[in-house]
Amino acid sequence: MSSANAIHIADAAADGKGKAATVAKPTRFKGGWRRGLAIFDFILRLFAIAAALAAAAAMGTTDQTLPFFTQFFQFKASYDDLPALTFFVIGNAIAGGYLVISLPFSIISIVRPYAVAPRSLLFIFDTIMVALTTGAASSAAAIVYLAHKGNSSANWIAICQQFNDFCQQTSGAVVASFIAAVIFILLIVMSASALRKS
Amino acid sequence: MSSANAIHIADAAADGKGKAATVAKPTRFKGGWRRGLAIFDFILRLFAIAAALAAAAAMGTTDQTLPFFTQFFQFKASYDDLPALTFFVIGNAIAGGYLVISLPFSIISIVRPYAVAPRSLLFIFDTIMVALTTGAASSAAAIVYLAHKGNSSANWIAICQQFNDFCQQTSGAVVASFIAAVIFILLIVMSASALRKS
Repeated sequence: MSSANAIHIADAAADGKGKAATVAKPTRFKGGWRRGLAIFDFILRLFAIAAALAAAAAMGTTDQTLPFFTQFFQFKASYDDLPALTFFVIGNAIAGGYLVISLPFSIISIVRPYAVAPRSLLFIFDTIMVALTTGAASSAAAIVYLAHKGNSSANWIAICQQFNDFCQQTSGAVVASFIAAVIFILLIVMSASALRKS
Repeated sequence: MSSANAIHIADAAADGKGKAATVAKPTRFKGGWRRGLAIFDFILRLFAIAAALAAAAAMGTTDQTLPFFTQFFQFKASYDDLPALTFFVIGNAIAGGYLVISLPFSIISIVRPYAVAPRSLLFIFDTIMVALTTGAASSAAAIVYLAHKGNSSANWIAICQQFNDFCQQTSGAVVASFIAAVIFILLIVMSASALRKS
């Protein structure tokens, strides 16, 4: 900023009458660039809402009861049997709820491309949400992988032969949550470039 | 920036001779603030290196062989028996390696507090590393939790009664990795405030 500032000031000082024109022109150009980024931010947030809420809903509705009897005690697989999957539903629901609340702030960024406060606020919460959605998706992925493959060392059996629908639905939910996490990373990088000086 | 800029220009235009003084003073003040942040960034990176490499090392050296025989086929617990823990070691090793490489860029930010390129580069990679370390820590946490508690619905037994040392070491590694992830989030927020216009 210092060098750009100095140039503007030198211009303005050199040509006192042309001051307004010299300053207004780059400002409008930069505003347009920032506004375009803010609109893209808003659209990405809509996709992220869809991904996060779809992930939470898909995981939250997994509830498969087997029609036959086996040697196992339990015949019913539900997300709330596994703490990692419960965390997944809560994490994605929080991310989805946050995204809905963030939409007005994103609109403020479109209307006022130079406002620093709403972008900074979104930036900090977006960063926390990257950690939340990635954490939720990863822990659920570890459990879903285990459900698919099992682990002979720990003597954990694969349960996907019995609970096929359960495994398909949870796998889809994990993918949706990772999509939400990637969108959050894009939002952060975009916010940072909109916030940066130049 | 527009309003601050306008004020500087108005000042400079109004008082042509006092121009150099008006501009130089806030510049030096802001440089000091940014430099302080860059030094803190460097120190935090050192802590993050310690946390990430400690996590990778602690997890990578877990290898417990039981001195007695049980009804299970396997008597040896190692991180590479579980894909989530292997991912944990790789993820934290990558994060630690990246942090070591990032130190020179952090030093450039201390020397040149206004340089945008090194900070932007660090910012983007830090964001990716938040996702990587959080993902690695979360998936390992899901598996370690399962090892501690087991799960009756899926008929997965807790293995920590047998593999006590293994469980303690992996739990410590997970905590270290979460500390690295929190430091990365701090680094991102600090980079963004150093990069932002004001």
